Amino acid sequence: MATFVLQTLGCNVGAINTVQFSNHTGYRQVKGRRTPASEIRELYDGLKQSYLTDFDVLLSGYAPSAEAVEVIGQIARDLRFRATVKPGRFFWVLDPVMGDQGRLYVAEDIVPAYRQLIREADLVVPNQFEAELLSGVSISSLAGVANAVRTIHKTYGTSHVVVTSVGVDVDVDTAGGTSTSADAKSKSKGPETLTVVGSSKTKDGAARLFKIQVPQLDCYFSGTGDMFAGLLVARLREACAAMDLLDRASWMPDDYVQAVDLPLAKAVEKVLSSMQMVLEKTLAARNDELRSFGQGPGASIGGVEGQVAVAVGGGGDDESKRRFLAETKAAEVRVVRNARDLTHPEPRYRAQAVEV
Amino acid sequence: MATFVLQTLGCNVGAINTVQFSNHTGYRQVKGRRTPASEIRELYDGLKQSYLTDFDVLLSGYAPSAEAVEVIGQIARDLRFRATVKPGRFFWVLDPVMGDQGRLYVAEDIVPAYRQLIREADLVVPNQFEAELLSGVSISSLAGVANAVRTIHKTYGTSHVVVTSVGVDVDVDTAGGTSTSADAKSKSKGPETLTVVGSSKTKDGAARLFKIQVPQLDCYFSGTGDMFAGLLVARLREACAAMDLLDRASWMPDDYVQAVDLPLAKAVEKVLSSMQMVLEKTLAARNDELRSFGQGPGASIGGVEGQVAVAVGGGGDDESKRRFLAETKAAEVRVVRNARDLTHPEPRYRAQAVEV
Repeated sequence: MATFVLQTLGCNVGAINTVQFSNHTGYRQVKGRRTPASEIRELYDGLKQSYLTDFDVLLSGYAPSAEAVEVIGQIARDLRFRATVKPGRFFWVLDPVMGDQGRLYVAEDIVPAYRQLIREADLVVPNQFEAELLSGVSISSLAGVANAVRTIHKTYGTSHVVVTSVGVDVDVDTAGGTSTSADAKSKSKGPETLTVVGSSKTKDGAARLFKIQVPQLDCYFSGTGDMFAGLLVARLREACAAMDLLDRASWMPDDYVQAVDLPLAKAVEKVLSSMQMVLEKTLAARNDELRSFGQGPGASIGGVEGQVAVAVGGGGDDESKRRFLAETKAAEVRVVRNARDLTHPEPRYRAQAVEV
Repeated sequence: MATFVLQTLGCNVGAINTVQFSNHTGYRQVKGRRTPASEIRELYDGLKQSYLTDFDVLLSGYAPSAEAVEVIGQIARDLRFRATVKPGRFFWVLDPVMGDQGRLYVAEDIVPAYRQLIREADLVVPNQFEAELLSGVSISSLAGVANAVRTIHKTYGTSHVVVTSVGVDVDVDTAGGTSTSADAKSKSKGPETLTVVGSSKTKDGAARLFKIQVPQLDCYFSGTGDMFAGLLVARLREACAAMDLLDRASWMPDDYVQAVDLPLAKAVEKVLSSMQMVLEKTLAARNDELRSFGQGPGASIGGVEGQVAVAVGGGGDDESKRRFLAETKAAEVRVVRNARDLTHPEPRYRAQAVEV
């Protein structure tokens, strides 16, 4: 996903696959192999011996072991060293893939390994759960997200942070109050929203917080984290180039730039427009497919059967397992046929300042 | 390369990487790993257990061992079996990667393994050397190519054959005579040409031979075989869809369709236009880079130093090795930034009938 998205936006990619799997893990069964840390290292050494490591950006995602996380740190350090005399020539976007929805899906020793690395990255893109793990701040409101981001700036010194997919309802906070997620949800009118919160710190380490809200689509999609990260790499570099920041360490804008004018905010606006356009089309195509299943015997149709199937998918019932697999396939993100949405997003969303 | 090209043309790709290498082998040094045959099999089994094997087309390329070739045959058989009741629903494009320029670069037992498989493929795309290996016909003229293609049709029953990159000068043959490659070259006016020869057999197994000639660019590019194969998959399916052939076994056109009107000929025309457009831009960019090296001490510039560097690249001289590596990198095909040439090729080339 990340490679395709980056290439579609014109980036030449040298990809080191940290897994070779038959399918994404959303299917709940997978064959294939995680790449050993030693092999990740060896592939980088191979690039290096042929002088092929002149990368402008490193995007690191899923790492299969704590040792692999450490190797990625070594690679990042080596790439950074190459750029010593030209600080902006290297930029590291770190997606600290650890878990989601309160559940860790990597080995526990990966968490401290990432905590070591975060301080060397230029931009980190945790989801809500990962932001909690990294910051130690529990997130149940927009104020919580803001505190987590401030903590990541302060604790790790990270220049740019984006918390992707915050599921708490933040409308109440926006009006200046506080909320708890559970009842805020039931109060909200219209479609539920997902909130993305980002910040680029100032010289003295203060956060410049913005948020962007998008309608939440009623479906679980796999690969959206990598899609977000890949798009963000390309769009952030573009926005920073437009503001002539690429020769600065961490592409850091001046302190007078307001939160909503940050290149990071401009980039996330485009990223979310692209994603929403592709995911809406994916959802429509998936619903068409589900309706055709629905014509079979004993099938239910409607907006939530994806979730229902997830619940029964682990059971022993062959019919329901097959149905779960088909529904998972139906939700595969339609990114290849909608590449134009990546390159030409509609201007849909605007960042808003967060003041909590 | 093949995955990128296919995705750019709108194909959803399930890729099983048969190697994970740090770089292509044109650098003459590489780190990484060939995928064991058992893992190729396992990845396919993983796709199958989640009902993810509804592929319209299989494109098989480099296989790292004879055992891997056999596993690819098993996979193709399984995919074909799924399509038993709908013959055109599965189509196998086989690139029998074995060697080039008279040199085998795979293990010797791969050759007989491919000879076993060829009869099951719908389209084979050997280069000149591979066509010789498969047919047993030595190719030193257009008549030789034609005989090799006829032999592949007859011996293996393969419906479609394209011999890529025939280096012999075929102008004399076109006029009805015969030629030998060595002196024909020196006689030819203007830029040297590469010839691609293709054929779709008739019901009684006769060849319908066409050729397309393109100017030969003075540079060695890596990945062009995969680029050709990936483009051809997409363009052939498009051309066969336009002629409503996708429900026929091997997408076979009626016998009355002439060689130059074959969907295969139409497809190769577009493929070669795309390739030539991208490779011309690659060559120009590479020459710009070489000129900038040329400003350093002791450097030579000109059209052929890539080849000179190849000759000395294996030696112990660090400076010349580094130069060779830089020149190899400079010739990396600029495919990502020129994706539009893949989707929108100029109509440059027309297939001509071959009558020898």
